Amino acid sequence: MEQPKLPYSLNSKKVADATRAWLHKRGVNLNEIAELVMMLQQKYYPNLTMEECLDNVEKVLLKREVQNAVLTGIQLDILAEQGLLIPELQDMIENDEGLYGVDEILAFSIVNVYGSIGFTNYGYVDKLKPGILERLNDKSLGPIHTFLDDIVGAIAASASSRIAHRKQAEREVQNGEPSV
Amino acid sequence: MEQPKLPYSLNSKKVADATRAWLHKRGVNLNEIAELVMMLQQKYYPNLTMEECLDNVEKVLLKREVQNAVLTGIQLDILAEQGLLIPELQDMIENDEGLYGVDEILAFSIVNVYGSIGFTNYGYVDKLKPGILERLNDKSLGPIHTFLDDIVGAIAASASSRIAHRKQAEREVQNGEPSV
Amino acid sequence: MEQPKLPYSLNSKKVADATRAWLHKRGVNLNEIAELVMMLQQKYYPNLTMEECLDNVEKVLLKREVQNAVLTGIQLDILAEQGLLIPELQDMIENDEGLYGVDEILAFSIVNVYGSIGFTNYGYVDKLKPGILERLNDKSLGPIHTFLDDIVGAIAASASSRIAHRKQAEREVQNGEPSV
Amino acid sequence: MEQPKLPYSLNSKKVADATRAWLHKRGVNLNEIAELVMMLQQKYYPNLTMEECLDNVEKVLLKREVQNAVLTGIQLDILAEQGLLIPELQDMIENDEGLYGVDEILAFSIVNVYGSIGFTNYGYVDKLKPGILERLNDKSLGPIHTFLDDIVGAIAASASSRIAHRKQAEREVQNGEPSV
Repeated sequence: MEQPKLPYSLNSKKVADATRAWLHKRGVNLNEIAELVMMLQQKYYPNLTMEECLDNVEKVLLKREVQNAVLTGIQLDILAEQGLLIPELQDMIENDEGLYGVDEILAFSIVNVYGSIGFTNYGYVDKLKPGILERLNDKSLGPIHTFLDDIVGAIAASASSRIAHRKQAEREVQNGEPSV
Repeated sequence: MEQPKLPYSLNSKKVADATRAWLHKRGVNLNEIAELVMMLQQKYYPNLTMEECLDNVEKVLLKREVQNAVLTGIQLDILAEQGLLIPELQDMIENDEGLYGVDEILAFSIVNVYGSIGFTNYGYVDKLKPGILERLNDKSLGPIHTFLDDIVGAIAASASSRIAHRKQAEREVQNGEPSV
Repeated sequence: MEQPKLPYSLNSKKVADATRAWLHKRGVNLNEIAELVMMLQQKYYPNLTMEECLDNVEKVLLKREVQNAVLTGIQLDILAEQGLLIPELQDMIENDEGLYGVDEILAFSIVNVYGSIGFTNYGYVDKLKPGILERLNDKSLGPIHTFLDDIVGAIAASASSRIAHRKQAEREVQNGEPSV
Repeated sequence: MEQPKLPYSLNSKKVADATRAWLHKRGVNLNEIAELVMMLQQKYYPNLTMEECLDNVEKVLLKREVQNAVLTGIQLDILAEQGLLIPELQDMIENDEGLYGVDEILAFSIVNVYGSIGFTNYGYVDKLKPGILERLNDKSLGPIHTFLDDIVGAIAASASSRIAHRKQAEREVQNGEPSV
C-alpha cells in the first residue's frame, strides 16, 4: 500500500542537520572556521578560547538565514561540479568569474544577521584567504567551492560579530551596570 | 574640585533607554507599531494577539543595530527641523526628496537583522502608509519625519519576521518534533 | 581530432542573451514587466509611455548583477521542478517556504543596483502581486517560480528607480540648470 | 521687498558640487582615493594608470546614492565634533564605538551601487587602513572621521568594481567579440 504524500511542513531540525552534514561532506570542519574567528578576534580579546570560538560558530549555524544560504550555495557548487547548470551560469560558477557576485550576495545574507559590524571582517578574510579559505579557494584541487569559500568566511565574520556583542554584555555585568 | 572625565565605555542600558525615550518624544507609541504588525500578520495567524505584537516590537527594540538606526535617524530629523544641516542635505531631508534614500538604507539595516523575509512587509507598509505611518508622513503637521516613518515601518516589518520565526518553532513543538 | 578546450573567458554578450532567452522560456514577456513599471510610476509621471517603461526594463537587463541574479534564480526554480535539489532545499523551494528568503536576497541584489529608492516599490509589488506576478505566483499552474516572481518584481522596481533618476535629469535640463 | 521662498526643487549640480567641496574641506584629496584604487587593482591590471584610477573615482562621485551617503556621513562627523548630538549617539560616534555600525551601513550603500563584487575590497581596505585611511582613522589628530574613513574606503572599492567591469568590456572589444 502506498504511503500518501504528507502535506509539506517545514521541519527545522532537518534543515539544521542538513546544513551541518553538508558542510562536513564538503570538507569543512567547524574547528577550522573557529580558527578563522580566533585569528580575527584574539587581538581584541586576548583571553578568547577556541571553545568560545567554536561555540559561537555553532550558534551562528542555528540561524535559519544562515542555513538557507549554506544549503543554497553548496547546492550550486555541487551542480557546477556535475556540469548540470545553464551553460553561461556553468561557465561563470565553474571558473569563479570575478564579475559573478551571487556568492558574495549569499555570504552577505549571513553576515547581515549579526549586523553591519561584520562587513569588515568578512571582506578581510575573503581577500586574504587564511587557513581553510586557502584550501577551499585552491582551484587545482578538483572540487568547486565558488560559493563555499565565501560562505565559510561569512560564518567566521558572523561569529566574530556575535562575540563582540557578547563580550560587551559580559563587561557590563562585571562593571555592575544594570542590564538592559 | 573637578570631576575627572571618565574613559568612554559603552553603556548598553543607556542606549536602549534613549531609543525608547526618543521614539516617545517624537510621538511614536509602541502600541501603534504593534497595530502595524497585527495588520501585516493577522491573516497568517488568526489567533495573534496585540500583546504578542507589542512584545515582539519590544524585543526588536532590544537589538543594538535597531537602536543605532533609530537614534541616528531621529537625530537627522531633529537637526533638519532645527535647520542645522549642510544646506544641500537640509533641503533634501526637509523635503523628503525622493532621490535621497539614506532613510530607506537605515530602515533596511533594521529589517536585515531578522533576515530577508521582512523585505516585502517593509516595502508594503512604506508604500501604503497605514495607521501611524500616515500621521508621520503628513508634511502639513510641522515636525520632520523623513527618517522616522521608514524606521517605524522597518520595526513593524522586523517584528513580523520575528513572529514568523517564533510561530514556526511553536508549531514544531506542538507537533512533537525534536527541537533544533 | 579533438577540439582543445579553450581557456575560460567571460563572454558578456552570451550572458546577456541567455538572460533574455531564459526569461522568455520561463514565460516572462518584457511588456508585462513594463506594465508593472507603469503601474508603479504613472501617478508620478502622467505622461509616461509604455515605450519608456519597456526601454527602462531593457536597460536594467543590461546590468551584469541583474543578469547574474536572473540566471541563478531561474536555475534554482528549474532544478526544483526537476526534483534535483538536496531534499531539505528541494522541500523549501518547491513549497515557496516563508522562512526561506534567498529568493528575496537575489531580488534585492537587483534592486540595489539602482539604489535604496527602489526598496519600497519592490516590497509593494511583491506583496500585492499584480499582473504577471499573480500568474507567476499561482502554485496551481505547475511550474515552480519561487525565485522568478521576486526577480520580476525586482526588475520592475529597478526600472522604476531608473525612471525617477532620469526624469529628474530631464526636469533640470528643461529648467535650464547647469548639468552635473 | 522680501524674496518669496521658491518651492523646493532638487538641484543635482548643487548636490554634486557640495559632495566634492565637503570631501575637500574634510581633508580628502581625490588622488589619495585613487591611490587606494591603484593598490587594490594593480595586480589584476598591471597597466592601470593613476589617471584611470582618478577618473573612476570621479565617476563614482557622480552617482547620487554616493553623494547622499557622503554628505550624510560627513554631516554626522561634523556634528559629533561640535558636540551637538543626542548624548548616547554623541558618545558612540565620538568614540567610534565598535558596536555602532551605521558608518558601515552608509559605506555599503556606496559599494552596492557597483554590485557585490566590491564587498571584499571594501572590507579589506577598511581593515588594513592603508594610505589616507590610516590618517583619517588616527584618533589623536582631532577631527572625528567615524563615518568618513569608511566612506572613503567604500568609494575606492566602488571605483575598483567599476574598473573591473570596464576592463572586461575593453577585453571583449579587443577580442572582436560582439558587444552587448
